[in-house]
Amino acid sequence: MVIDLNADVGESHGACAVGADASLMPSITSANIAAGFHGGDPSVLRKTVRLAKTCGVAVGAHPGYPDLKGFGRREMRLPPGEVEDLVLYQIAAVAGVARTEGVALQHVKPHGALYNTAARDEALADAIVRAIVAFDRSLVLFAPPASALLKAGTAHGIRVAAEGFADRAYQPDGSLASRQHPGAVITDARTVIARALRMVKERTVVAVDGASIPLAIDTLCIHSDTPGAGELAAALRAGLEAAGITIAAALRR
Amino acid sequence: MVIDLNADVGESHGACAVGADASLMPSITSANIAAGFHGGDPSVLRKTVRLAKTCGVAVGAHPGYPDLKGFGRREMRLPPGEVEDLVLYQIAAVAGVARTEGVALQHVKPHGALYNTAARDEALADAIVRAIVAFDRSLVLFAPPASALLKAGTAHGIRVAAEGFADRAYQPDGSLASRQHPGAVITDARTVIARALRMVKERTVVAVDGASIPLAIDTLCIHSDTPGAGELAAALRAGLEAAGITIAAALRR
Amino acid sequence: MVIDLNADVGESHGACAVGADASLMPSITSANIAAGFHGGDPSVLRKTVRLAKTCGVAVGAHPGYPDLKGFGRREMRLPPGEVEDLVLYQIAAVAGVARTEGVALQHVKPHGALYNTAARDEALADAIVRAIVAFDRSLVLFAPPASALLKAGTAHGIRVAAEGFADRAYQPDGSLASRQHPGAVITDARTVIARALRMVKERTVVAVDGASIPLAIDTLCIHSDTPGAGELAAALRAGLEAAGITIAAALRR
Amino acid sequence: MVIDLNADVGESHGACAVGADASLMPSITSANIAAGFHGGDPSVLRKTVRLAKTCGVAVGAHPGYPDLKGFGRREMRLPPGEVEDLVLYQIAAVAGVARTEGVALQHVKPHGALYNTAARDEALADAIVRAIVAFDRSLVLFAPPASALLKAGTAHGIRVAAEGFADRAYQPDGSLASRQHPGAVITDARTVIARALRMVKERTVVAVDGASIPLAIDTLCIHSDTPGAGELAAALRAGLEAAGITIAAALRR
Repeated sequence: MVIDLNADVGESHGACAVGADASLMPSITSANIAAGFHGGDPSVLRKTVRLAKTCGVAVGAHPGYPDLKGFGRREMRLPPGEVEDLVLYQIAAVAGVARTEGVALQHVKPHGALYNTAARDEALADAIVRAIVAFDRSLVLFAPPASALLKAGTAHGIRVAAEGFADRAYQPDGSLASRQHPGAVITDARTVIARALRMVKERTVVAVDGASIPLAIDTLCIHSDTPGAGELAAALRAGLEAAGITIAAALRR
Repeated sequence: MVIDLNADVGESHGACAVGADASLMPSITSANIAAGFHGGDPSVLRKTVRLAKTCGVAVGAHPGYPDLKGFGRREMRLPPGEVEDLVLYQIAAVAGVARTEGVALQHVKPHGALYNTAARDEALADAIVRAIVAFDRSLVLFAPPASALLKAGTAHGIRVAAEGFADRAYQPDGSLASRQHPGAVITDARTVIARALRMVKERTVVAVDGASIPLAIDTLCIHSDTPGAGELAAALRAGLEAAGITIAAALRR
Repeated sequence: MVIDLNADVGESHGACAVGADASLMPSITSANIAAGFHGGDPSVLRKTVRLAKTCGVAVGAHPGYPDLKGFGRREMRLPPGEVEDLVLYQIAAVAGVARTEGVALQHVKPHGALYNTAARDEALADAIVRAIVAFDRSLVLFAPPASALLKAGTAHGIRVAAEGFADRAYQPDGSLASRQHPGAVITDARTVIARALRMVKERTVVAVDGASIPLAIDTLCIHSDTPGAGELAAALRAGLEAAGITIAAALRR
Repeated sequence: MVIDLNADVGESHGACAVGADASLMPSITSANIAAGFHGGDPSVLRKTVRLAKTCGVAVGAHPGYPDLKGFGRREMRLPPGEVEDLVLYQIAAVAGVARTEGVALQHVKPHGALYNTAARDEALADAIVRAIVAFDRSLVLFAPPASALLKAGTAHGIRVAAEGFADRAYQPDGSLASRQHPGAVITDARTVIARALRMVKERTVVAVDGASIPLAIDTLCIHSDTPGAGELAAALRAGLEAAGITIAAALRR
């Protein structure tokens, strides 16, 4: 059994420090690097690529809405054609900086509101996948299991990696419980590890109503902006490895 | 005799229309395309690359300071390392979008205050050239003749193209007369053509004090944001061709 | 009979020229001045206040979403509390600059997507009105007739001015036909004048299905970003005055 | 003997947390609140005004260059007229939001590169003071002792408060030692208190060369972005009070 561990990194910009990149990087296998639209800036991007390379972590582009103020977490109603262009631009920027540092881009994972909306909006999902296909159809798309985004990737014939969250509660329909709900974010390391093991080994998760629902995932996301993210990531990785699971980047499998 | 004609294009963004790209493009041979920092946006960038490709115009990156409000014309005192990173980022974005459209990047021309400051500031000039060298050392650098920027390019062993302005007055030291000076911008087509011919054929220009000074150039810039820019560009091209001069992109020579 | 004529102005910023402010201003009685979020900048704001003062035009704040790129025309899903704060901020900025120029603020008209969404979203409408009430409850709110926004103003006990558009087609339910629909924007001056006269005198408008529907308005908006906006505004004003209608700012009535 | 303690606050924006506002506020008497150009946003501004009001701290505007990315610490060469307008805008926004919360603005302190450049650039200093005078000539200007900015304030007849830094090293000419110099930032609480006492009681400071130089100040700045800023502020305040010095806001004296 094998699983990829990914995290959103490179989201600091200017005087604004976001995330625990340095402490997270040794525990993950895929880094989703921001491109300056919802977070990140050219210097942070380059530094983060270098850090990922040093740690042997695969590099992906993490495109978001052009909303630094709202950290890309506010839905913006943009025409699909505009989304296609801004996703293409962000992939190009991250890929070009990565190539300059001797690293080939592995994957693309949309950020925040762009990811959540594309999970259910077919036109938006298709626009994102068109950008990937236009730039480099060997890239892997990270998307929620059974989402419109994942389906769009498959429909266009690109590789996809279904993503799960070990530190978030799931609704009976397989979607994430809103952060507004009490218990939506799980911070206890042992619970997180137990949920991750269940996802990887049994391909299920226990939803908020107590039912076990199917959840087939290829990559597990570790949130980088929670306190103690580095420690939690290390504990999760150790817990998975102790259970005989191989941790490896999405592309290498 | 041969000369390249270049123009700054793709500088519109969102609701803001800048420049006469569509009317200019048929007359030029090299397009300097903005990357969204001083002007331009992802959709305008992609559209402009397509327009250049259709017109058979070579594509270059036109990186500027991150100052959409000031159109990159205000000097910002940034550390050279930060300039290197933001120039690299902008080259990567334009090159990646161009490659997606089947076009290989030809050149890099810094914009506005970045270009002017790098013409005299060695540390800034070196930072810009480092970004080019890191990304792709086959790119051509556009820079003022005899400037610190041109020298930095030569010192790093990359190809350079010295740039002249047929519609701008020159000071006796070979620098441009400030736009504040009366007569600094020349709008009469016949005068512009006569000055361009002199630059190309005699490799000189008449400075504001009446003296003829040396000016060896490889590419002539046509400003895109003056009224009637398209007509002036067409007249200039026709005037140069009528005098037996070949108009061809910098790289093709 | 009396009507106010308003226009959105002061939406240029930096190198980006938007609207025909100088040619419009002599024909209108209320100016909705942008605050730098969807358009405008501090210098344009101050200059526009001065122009309005010179022309004897009443000044209002024209707050929008923080989206310069999208000109405030893209819906952003912001929490009502955040909208309240950004509307308050924009009113404060415009009112303070106006006061500095010796002009008291008359009104507030939300811009673009903020206006359209607040017309039907009660929580958003209430947030906007709370900002107005907190800042100065003597301000007049411009809003669509019978909208959630107008109702929120009335519920909070502030003065409201119902706004109509003489150059836009209406649906049978009293809402504007989308700009995507053919015929949604009316450019013929005589038709615009005839529709305006009907709105003012008969308090009705002919909808796209040919039916006459009630439309009780206090102020008529003239779009500033259509070609020939200045001429159309002058013709509309002349046509209304020729029919014996008094043109006067909302507050003065 | 009396001294004002001030700090730059309200500089967080969106997902970006800057400064230790909550822990600092109880120890200071004047709060310099950002207006969203170099830091801050409409919601942070309003919340910070409320916090200052609750703590009985006087409120000032803290205008900066429009450079969120560089936190206003990068010099931008803007025309003085443009600086006047953007300082006016920021004062208007902060004053309007403060007034909405029942608080009258006390002072204006320019931020970062704007403050440092105006300390030596007369044209820039005059532009800033013109904005203050135009908006409200009863406002107090915070500026370095003997600076061009302080002199401009005096020349225009407004009240000024000379500002000192107890945690920064001074050069023999009375200017601050650059942050690049070792020892430029002083973090030891006892040293900071001793230096502050000397400034207040003897109106001198020991420069980096060991010489005692005159430094007549009315207000002491406490940096909000250093680790342990809240504790240092509390210790400084206690140390000053223990020495019989009254801590009171600039305006109240």
